[in-house]
Amino acid sequence: MSAIDTVIQDLVIANRILAKEEVADAYGHVSVRHPDNPKHFFISRSLAPELIEKGDIVELDLDGNPVRDEKRSLYLERFIHAGIFQMRPDVMAVVHAHAEDILPFGIAKATKLRPVIHSGSFIGSSVPVWDIADKFGDTNVLVTNMAQGRDLAKCLGKNNVALMRGHGFAAAARSLIEVVRMSVYLPRNARAQLRAKQLGGKIKYLSQGEIDARNRGYSPYSTETWRAWEYWANKAGCSHMLTRPEQPHEHKK
Amino acid sequence: MSAIDTVIQDLVIANRILAKEEVADAYGHVSVRHPDNPKHFFISRSLAPELIEKGDIVELDLDGNPVRDEKRSLYLERFIHAGIFQMRPDVMAVVHAHAEDILPFGIAKATKLRPVIHSGSFIGSSVPVWDIADKFGDTNVLVTNMAQGRDLAKCLGKNNVALMRGHGFAAAARSLIEVVRMSVYLPRNARAQLRAKQLGGKIKYLSQGEIDARNRGYSPYSTETWRAWEYWANKAGCSHMLTRPEQPHEHKK
Amino acid sequence: MSAIDTVIQDLVIANRILAKEEVADAYGHVSVRHPDNPKHFFISRSLAPELIEKGDIVELDLDGNPVRDEKRSLYLERFIHAGIFQMRPDVMAVVHAHAEDILPFGIAKATKLRPVIHSGSFIGSSVPVWDIADKFGDTNVLVTNMAQGRDLAKCLGKNNVALMRGHGFAAAARSLIEVVRMSVYLPRNARAQLRAKQLGGKIKYLSQGEIDARNRGYSPYSTETWRAWEYWANKAGCSHMLTRPEQPHEHKK
Amino acid sequence: MSAIDTVIQDLVIANRILAKEEVADAYGHVSVRHPDNPKHFFISRSLAPELIEKGDIVELDLDGNPVRDEKRSLYLERFIHAGIFQMRPDVMAVVHAHAEDILPFGIAKATKLRPVIHSGSFIGSSVPVWDIADKFGDTNVLVTNMAQGRDLAKCLGKNNVALMRGHGFAAAARSLIEVVRMSVYLPRNARAQLRAKQLGGKIKYLSQGEIDARNRGYSPYSTETWRAWEYWANKAGCSHMLTRPEQPHEHKK
Repeated sequence: MSAIDTVIQDLVIANRILAKEEVADAYGHVSVRHPDNPKHFFISRSLAPELIEKGDIVELDLDGNPVRDEKRSLYLERFIHAGIFQMRPDVMAVVHAHAEDILPFGIAKATKLRPVIHSGSFIGSSVPVWDIADKFGDTNVLVTNMAQGRDLAKCLGKNNVALMRGHGFAAAARSLIEVVRMSVYLPRNARAQLRAKQLGGKIKYLSQGEIDARNRGYSPYSTETWRAWEYWANKAGCSHMLTRPEQPHEHKK
Repeated sequence: MSAIDTVIQDLVIANRILAKEEVADAYGHVSVRHPDNPKHFFISRSLAPELIEKGDIVELDLDGNPVRDEKRSLYLERFIHAGIFQMRPDVMAVVHAHAEDILPFGIAKATKLRPVIHSGSFIGSSVPVWDIADKFGDTNVLVTNMAQGRDLAKCLGKNNVALMRGHGFAAAARSLIEVVRMSVYLPRNARAQLRAKQLGGKIKYLSQGEIDARNRGYSPYSTETWRAWEYWANKAGCSHMLTRPEQPHEHKK
Repeated sequence: MSAIDTVIQDLVIANRILAKEEVADAYGHVSVRHPDNPKHFFISRSLAPELIEKGDIVELDLDGNPVRDEKRSLYLERFIHAGIFQMRPDVMAVVHAHAEDILPFGIAKATKLRPVIHSGSFIGSSVPVWDIADKFGDTNVLVTNMAQGRDLAKCLGKNNVALMRGHGFAAAARSLIEVVRMSVYLPRNARAQLRAKQLGGKIKYLSQGEIDARNRGYSPYSTETWRAWEYWANKAGCSHMLTRPEQPHEHKK
Repeated sequence: MSAIDTVIQDLVIANRILAKEEVADAYGHVSVRHPDNPKHFFISRSLAPELIEKGDIVELDLDGNPVRDEKRSLYLERFIHAGIFQMRPDVMAVVHAHAEDILPFGIAKATKLRPVIHSGSFIGSSVPVWDIADKFGDTNVLVTNMAQGRDLAKCLGKNNVALMRGHGFAAAARSLIEVVRMSVYLPRNARAQLRAKQLGGKIKYLSQGEIDARNRGYSPYSTETWRAWEYWANKAGCSHMLTRPEQPHEHKK
């Protein structure tokens, strides 16, 4: 299988995982930058993530336009991905979804979403909330053009996740595996934080040093990261699609 | 397949989706107005939504009476549908159900249910709470005659959703696909609003302009609306029943 | 099939439904009084409800002793059933389980569990909380003898449900179908009440007149009651076991 | 099957149960002490619990080193198990996992997790919270060496469960069946306690006498304990792996 085929197949797996883990439902999408051409990225045509096959993946440029003749409908909100890939050359993969348990933090903005659990560390110490109304007034709340996509990317800045008021979130990472993991644990961190608040008293967040230490240890094909990817793919019924690059010997004694 | 057959088949799909998405359980029902005769509507005989087949669909008039000889039991609460179809000629489809997470807003009426997420926009800016006791005193809380059905419809007024105190909700829309989508996202909006309240501080609701913008953009067979219908039908195990009208070319470049 | 066979088969269905609806897990049990001998009742041997077959059902007397030679282990807490059947000749069926969402109301007793939704009306206007420690001091919290079973039954009195502090609930009804329905909707009522409280403001409970009106309308084999039984049995994978007595014509026009 | 084979097979079952009951996801692990050599224990190689087979089980010493040549990757956090087995000769089995609903109690430490329900009694009257930062400063929050494992075991002391701040919990018991049961009911106890708190008013915890009475009655192969193990194994799809030691006659009349 060519490198591109592998990327596309991994993108199919990523879609199925996000559906199974209830990060996405009929809506929500995930994209990955072209490994050889940083000005292009891959994403599905307009389809629910659970139903996506390899043939549904299309290649877009950084303005959200298809690079080949394309008759099929595309996601209205592909500009979220285009905007972030444009402004963040370090980002290789993007998720946008409406995972239910992050929504309250975009609606009641006085409480900042912050990492409280180790699996939530990858969202980073600051999670800005983007409100489309601030610049664009009364819209249908969707990101439907490049101006909106770039404005969201600007709000995201150097962070890993931005909440979108009354809508959902956008997550950006160095690899597809990482952005999926971040998206699955983001709602769990939100729930843990809400419930800790309900218990009352002082909440202990992860320290900046802890967030940094976890980030330094990250490797997209480490045993630990792969373990989750393999597990989720199996749950989502697509373990047969898994391909793993050859690894250096990892045994730790 | 005739137009009527398609409507009936879509009604079966709608029932199965509402069951799978936990909007309905053994109870709850969905109806659709007859496409050629606005004085009739289709609804199942008395049966749990998950178990409904095409042969279970019956045709009723706007007083809730079957238009053909019918030996099978009918829903006690068919007058909810009859009442709304009578008083709202613009409405093509109605759902009544007891989705758990909307119940608190009908019990603790001081907090108004309002759209806080974009997928909740279709419930509209005002969701009245109908209390059967206000006019009918101590009843079994069910809507079992036309006087009650019409009173509920009067409370609903020009809105899309009415909560029913201690009981559930009634939703009305321009199409079956729309009323199902509204019913699925209604409890999600309720949960997001409750949890935002638990976080504390100011809650940002969707603005009237946002609600209007979303409503203007609605089309029952658009790519985006169909995507959800197809996804839910597939989850509910009835994707083989899907029929989609021919669409104008929708590619957006 | 004989009347007794039907009762036993219905008891198997009841067990499977309680498991599937998460009222019971490995623990929890349901019993039914012998239709011809009010001094005996049927219940499973010690086994998780999901796994129970007809051959697992045993016949006990009102002291909780097996009426036939029995080598298999019995439920430690069969005295809950024996106690209630002894003291309440009107009761035909009993459930004891640990459904999670009723537990808080047995722990934080200042808030009384009360019907707030129509499907919760059958729990009745008063739900006493029985604390085993009040009379028996420090125990393993289980009801393991007749003195404890009778004390619980005394606390239950003429009500339909008693909560058991730090443990679960006991429900009693005029039929197996009714006690199952009550047990399924009991946790839903508890959740609705807790969340209504979280919304704040005044809570509107069902009125005594509404509770009475609903109770008067109850019939164990009505179309509406059967609809739920059939639905739950189907979900629990045992619709093939369903048997329904001949009904008078029920069509309402 | 040899005694060792049985232990290994039970460990596979334990892994599958913890996955199915959502105590573990891709992460989390369970170990059992070698029945003949208290200085060794069994645990899986680095793999998601749901996917573990007998061939994945490895034998480690009490410093967390494999006792045979091992090329496969091991769990980074095997030192949790090694540390507890070292310091607690009475402990035969250990679970470490991140069950979501216990996390708030490790983050908002002012509220102590305590048994409020009878199935939660086995966590014991005191559940200390271990904060890795207290002794080790800014880390990646994982227990990756013996010093950390021993420090956690020291915090655990004579208790059955320690919460790990921002991370999860460690549970220790006299048998595999018991540690699994404790781990399944621990999050349920946490939820019941949180919700009782939300109801307001005084919370009634299990008394020390009740906790002691339940503990005295515990037997790993009693009818009641086995009932849960059998039920969970069946739910997790591995009832065919169950082996039960011969029991003395248990019938109670």
